[in-house]
Amino acid sequence: MNTYFPLEEKNIKIHGRTVERSPLALFWTGSGIELVTDASELHFELESGFDIYEQWIRIEVNGYSSVRMPLGTGVSDICVFRGMEKRSMKHVRLFKEVQPMGADCDSYLRVISVKADGALYPVGERPYLLEFIGDSITSGEGLGGRRGLNEWVPSVFTTEKHYVLETARLLDADFNIISQSGWGVYSSWDNNVTHALPKIYPYVCGPQIGGIAEALGSREPYGFGGRVPDAVIVNLGTNDANAFKEPAWVDPETGKKYKLNTLDDGSFDPADLKKISDAVKGFLKTLRCIHKDAYIVWAYGMIGRPLKDCIEGAVNEYIAESGDRRAEFCLLPDIEDEWIAANEHPGRGSHAAAAKTLAGFLRERLT
Amino acid sequence: MNTYFPLEEKNIKIHGRTVERSPLALFWTGSGIELVTDASELHFELESGFDIYEQWIRIEVNGYSSVRMPLGTGVSDICVFRGMEKRSMKHVRLFKEVQPMGADCDSYLRVISVKADGALYPVGERPYLLEFIGDSITSGEGLGGRRGLNEWVPSVFTTEKHYVLETARLLDADFNIISQSGWGVYSSWDNNVTHALPKIYPYVCGPQIGGIAEALGSREPYGFGGRVPDAVIVNLGTNDANAFKEPAWVDPETGKKYKLNTLDDGSFDPADLKKISDAVKGFLKTLRCIHKDAYIVWAYGMIGRPLKDCIEGAVNEYIAESGDRRAEFCLLPDIEDEWIAANEHPGRGSHAAAAKTLAGFLRERLT
Amino acid sequence: MNTYFPLEEKNIKIHGRTVERSPLALFWTGSGIELVTDASELHFELESGFDIYEQWIRIEVNGYSSVRMPLGTGVSDICVFRGMEKRSMKHVRLFKEVQPMGADCDSYLRVISVKADGALYPVGERPYLLEFIGDSITSGEGLGGRRGLNEWVPSVFTTEKHYVLETARLLDADFNIISQSGWGVYSSWDNNVTHALPKIYPYVCGPQIGGIAEALGSREPYGFGGRVPDAVIVNLGTNDANAFKEPAWVDPETGKKYKLNTLDDGSFDPADLKKISDAVKGFLKTLRCIHKDAYIVWAYGMIGRPLKDCIEGAVNEYIAESGDRRAEFCLLPDIEDEWIAANEHPGRGSHAAAAKTLAGFLRERLT
Amino acid sequence: MNTYFPLEEKNIKIHGRTVERSPLALFWTGSGIELVTDASELHFELESGFDIYEQWIRIEVNGYSSVRMPLGTGVSDICVFRGMEKRSMKHVRLFKEVQPMGADCDSYLRVISVKADGALYPVGERPYLLEFIGDSITSGEGLGGRRGLNEWVPSVFTTEKHYVLETARLLDADFNIISQSGWGVYSSWDNNVTHALPKIYPYVCGPQIGGIAEALGSREPYGFGGRVPDAVIVNLGTNDANAFKEPAWVDPETGKKYKLNTLDDGSFDPADLKKISDAVKGFLKTLRCIHKDAYIVWAYGMIGRPLKDCIEGAVNEYIAESGDRRAEFCLLPDIEDEWIAANEHPGRGSHAAAAKTLAGFLRERLT
Repeated sequence: MNTYFPLEEKNIKIHGRTVERSPLALFWTGSGIELVTDASELHFELESGFDIYEQWIRIEVNGYSSVRMPLGTGVSDICVFRGMEKRSMKHVRLFKEVQPMGADCDSYLRVISVKADGALYPVGERPYLLEFIGDSITSGEGLGGRRGLNEWVPSVFTTEKHYVLETARLLDADFNIISQSGWGVYSSWDNNVTHALPKIYPYVCGPQIGGIAEALGSREPYGFGGRVPDAVIVNLGTNDANAFKEPAWVDPETGKKYKLNTLDDGSFDPADLKKISDAVKGFLKTLRCIHKDAYIVWAYGMIGRPLKDCIEGAVNEYIAESGDRRAEFCLLPDIEDEWIAANEHPGRGSHAAAAKTLAGFLRERLT
Repeated sequence: MNTYFPLEEKNIKIHGRTVERSPLALFWTGSGIELVTDASELHFELESGFDIYEQWIRIEVNGYSSVRMPLGTGVSDICVFRGMEKRSMKHVRLFKEVQPMGADCDSYLRVISVKADGALYPVGERPYLLEFIGDSITSGEGLGGRRGLNEWVPSVFTTEKHYVLETARLLDADFNIISQSGWGVYSSWDNNVTHALPKIYPYVCGPQIGGIAEALGSREPYGFGGRVPDAVIVNLGTNDANAFKEPAWVDPETGKKYKLNTLDDGSFDPADLKKISDAVKGFLKTLRCIHKDAYIVWAYGMIGRPLKDCIEGAVNEYIAESGDRRAEFCLLPDIEDEWIAANEHPGRGSHAAAAKTLAGFLRERLT
Repeated sequence: MNTYFPLEEKNIKIHGRTVERSPLALFWTGSGIELVTDASELHFELESGFDIYEQWIRIEVNGYSSVRMPLGTGVSDICVFRGMEKRSMKHVRLFKEVQPMGADCDSYLRVISVKADGALYPVGERPYLLEFIGDSITSGEGLGGRRGLNEWVPSVFTTEKHYVLETARLLDADFNIISQSGWGVYSSWDNNVTHALPKIYPYVCGPQIGGIAEALGSREPYGFGGRVPDAVIVNLGTNDANAFKEPAWVDPETGKKYKLNTLDDGSFDPADLKKISDAVKGFLKTLRCIHKDAYIVWAYGMIGRPLKDCIEGAVNEYIAESGDRRAEFCLLPDIEDEWIAANEHPGRGSHAAAAKTLAGFLRERLT
Repeated sequence: MNTYFPLEEKNIKIHGRTVERSPLALFWTGSGIELVTDASELHFELESGFDIYEQWIRIEVNGYSSVRMPLGTGVSDICVFRGMEKRSMKHVRLFKEVQPMGADCDSYLRVISVKADGALYPVGERPYLLEFIGDSITSGEGLGGRRGLNEWVPSVFTTEKHYVLETARLLDADFNIISQSGWGVYSSWDNNVTHALPKIYPYVCGPQIGGIAEALGSREPYGFGGRVPDAVIVNLGTNDANAFKEPAWVDPETGKKYKLNTLDDGSFDPADLKKISDAVKGFLKTLRCIHKDAYIVWAYGMIGRPLKDCIEGAVNEYIAESGDRRAEFCLLPDIEDEWIAANEHPGRGSHAAAAKTLAGFLRERLT
């Protein structure tokens, strides 16, 4: 008979920033659980809901993607496998495929239990823990669909062949992701200055305000009491650059307008570049304050690099001003035409190239 | 509101050998349906059952694998996508990931309906139709799992990155598959002479005898009244070679023993090789009789090639004896160590190499 | 194997006002399907959705209530029975347990298919068809729960032991129901004059405006092209009486106030009684216009009878003025203390008494 | 948000003989859980499986039957209600509607969790605990279907209007049931002497041997460590009487034949009556041994009473021989023609009459 393991079970390893209650809420892209079992049959009991954006999950067995599917509302009993030999050990990971949807705070995903007819064994920690902070690129937007498909829907998000998972695989690292499509370090693609990752970084899952997500703890301050990341990789700036071309955003509370401007010659207004530069430096200070020992990398450039000088300069200024020797800028490979996937976003080629660059970069710096 | 399209709907294209009733039974690996729709939301209503081996399906959107999952017993409402734009055309294919399970004739899969909030559009025929006849290699066994996993379970079967689908993609061809793990042209790996593909080729789904599968029509004679394949590719012989090393099989009805023997020096007994050779020639005659205009290829060699001379010789004898100018032997790339996947079977590298070879071979011969 | 019968199947009898499309939308209390089958196994495929008020169904086998349950969102495969003998005939009815919910126009219920491993046989018409038009009493509100439970939720609505079904059973009649909790003939309990049954009577399901219900056809004019009812029973007036004690309703479009008033001595203002009286007479004319041959009964009095004189007088005036000899007032048994069920509504005793009265009344008048 | 309460939760009251593990296996007719909650929304997570006989459940809210439905295989999330007021207390009972199926030991039912958005409150014990031991009558066979339906299927079993539940209700008692259709005190209707309730009484759920049921603990010795019943009511003998008319049963292990015989004049062979009489006395001794303080009632006669003298005599002999003053025979009302339900078994009238008799009988004897 199958046993139901609650999420308190110590041999269930939890990935991603969450509040560790049972059932376990999964908020972020790539959040999930991991286990090793000798069971012949394995199920996950999941609970999910949404108004607009349904949840998707992916399950790997021994590192091979085996299940990828959307979830309906209510409880789902997902069979991972059945009929396997009881003597053999299977290594299983469950991933949330999609980012937290700020526009649908009733979208949520919880792991209720693991059901298996065998025992669970300790998973252990991988040598490193990496934290990635980013935008749609880091949310895996578009990676799940072919170029030509331009739909802002959950099914085009995926963690398969994702640069974060690939980087982590190459370095044998655990990872977690904090990311939101369209957001930046100073403002979002549409000049919304509240849609900046630094603003929500201190919360469990800041972009989800209200609804079921908040009832699950999304807006609680995050304790940062767990394992300290060995490296924090910030992949932000792409949307800040877009904002120069977009209309102003008006704060509905204050009526104040926000816009990054270009000069008459089309170049970025230096005064506005300084806002970005200050935001970069400010976020670096915040991160250093929270993660005393982490190597901090500002990675940039997967969809063009108009802000390369601005960001690289800001990082270097921060280093000079702070004396921090464990922060650095890293240019990622720019997208190539044949690498473009759905929503004109980086596809597998792009993610593979980024992972190779980052893994090489980090391998030299992590000891 | 979503409309329910029954399977009689002319714009639903059906793949794979079946009886074209509604609901539509899917028997073989890679069987499925294909459609083009402008819907914003698409669901498949599937019905499935099993005693031992559960069904798995895979769904591609615009050629990208988006859903892969097992099915429980009963009716499943599988959401392919929701929330897409109504103006855009999406090209969707549903595949059965697993072969018909002769050992579980209550395992079955039916497509009840397609549910969409838009219209379906004609899919059209691809320039070629290819039929593949094979064993576990052609059933995609092991392709769905990593080397080291050795489990005879449905989840290690897949059509993703499968040499048949890749060959068809490279040639822009439709395809269908007739295959059974462990079976051969003369006998199965364990000398069972009833487990030979030629024995069941005339039936809708010969290996499933009794149970729900037979109620669905598995044992009905197949009409061969549909589109004529441009090429028939037989990938058999691998299990026949294994049979030389295995104990005899005793026919439970007659008590007669069957075994392919090796001589004292370890070589294959020429008398037994002739049985295989005769079986090859016989099957070629049968195929030519059914498919007058098809190019017939005997492809061999993805897991070793101990029977290369035997099979190639038989093909050439058949050509000489029949004057058939449209039959030919084709050696496929042998497995390499880093290509091995679950169940010690060919993985993605192996399948990609076979597809490249076959596509090149066929491109020159199909006009 | 089970066969899927679409709702076009002629041997599936449809009950209740709807648009006869496939899948079949069920709007009203007691709407449903009926069939006779020799199958050993029977399932209903239902599709349902809601924002606030979930759907409930009930299934009778040979007149015995066997299944009663709520439905989730999406497709449900409801097994009615399995393992019965194939030789025996089973008579099955599916009922919608709940009224259309005007406050949740995304609540809906559709019958997708009947699934059975046998044949369906003609059901035939019962000798009479009765139509009931009413309020919460006729919606079966409270009948599904014990006194003391006061919750405006779907689960307290039921058609089991409902006076309409009991009346129909006693007379061997088919029936359909058009009813809304809180509504009246002139205005609802809270003086809302748009919440009057005559206002929505000409539509398929008038109270559901917008949302999925309207997409399913709720607001289409109803054709009245089907079988002519032998009797139309109006059970309205209970909420009109309540309105005298409630505050005015203000029409949000015109700003006009509506209120039924009492005089200083607590009696109903005769001017307002006339509004009700006129509404009664108007509705009788409408009904007679639509249903030329029906016997029309105004039944009243299951929860007090403060408007008995008003309504009975209006019916008699209508008769006198029109010369209509086939319209009549019928006083129903008043609720008794031990008959009270949930929401202080009539329970089983009350419904049984009303059915007995009505069946006796109609038996004498229907030929 | 809903909380998941595991079955260890102290405020979930468990009914019926089981092994108190989590998830909680329900074996016997009327087994289930009971709770009081202020939640607005309540769900039960159930897990069920079967080969032949599906499980059915029934749910009462405040003593009113609200849900009755079959379960599929796998996990079901059963919504009991939603949208109720949080301030109000709801009293909910979940019942297993069907007996343990000895012929389908893979049929099982487990309660995984209770899901609610409120708190659970203590249920408390009712003043008495009654244990009923019986055959199909006590299993509620036929009670769920109309006369004329003759099908040995789960759907005709029910606990609604069941004499055990009615007796318990009249006395404000808790109850549990141990019963098997077709079984007797000495032998089953077909002379099978292993199908006698005394043989399996000491086990958790003796009739289910092997399969999932046994893995869940059906064949474990029952500890009898819980609350002591105030009365044990044995309702056996009906099938023993039938056995006189049936062919012999041959023990497959020993080859020995067993048959209760009639004499030439059609009367029961006194030697065989003595076997029954001895079995009655033996079982009374066993019950007294286990339940020192219980009032023991042998109730008989709901479907004819050919063994009345035999059983009543045996009870009186037992009393005389043992000096036991708290054992007694009780004749139940014989079935009347209009009381017959499905499978020619007692229907609601019959169960109501039996409950009235038994409640009166016990009321005088329990203090």
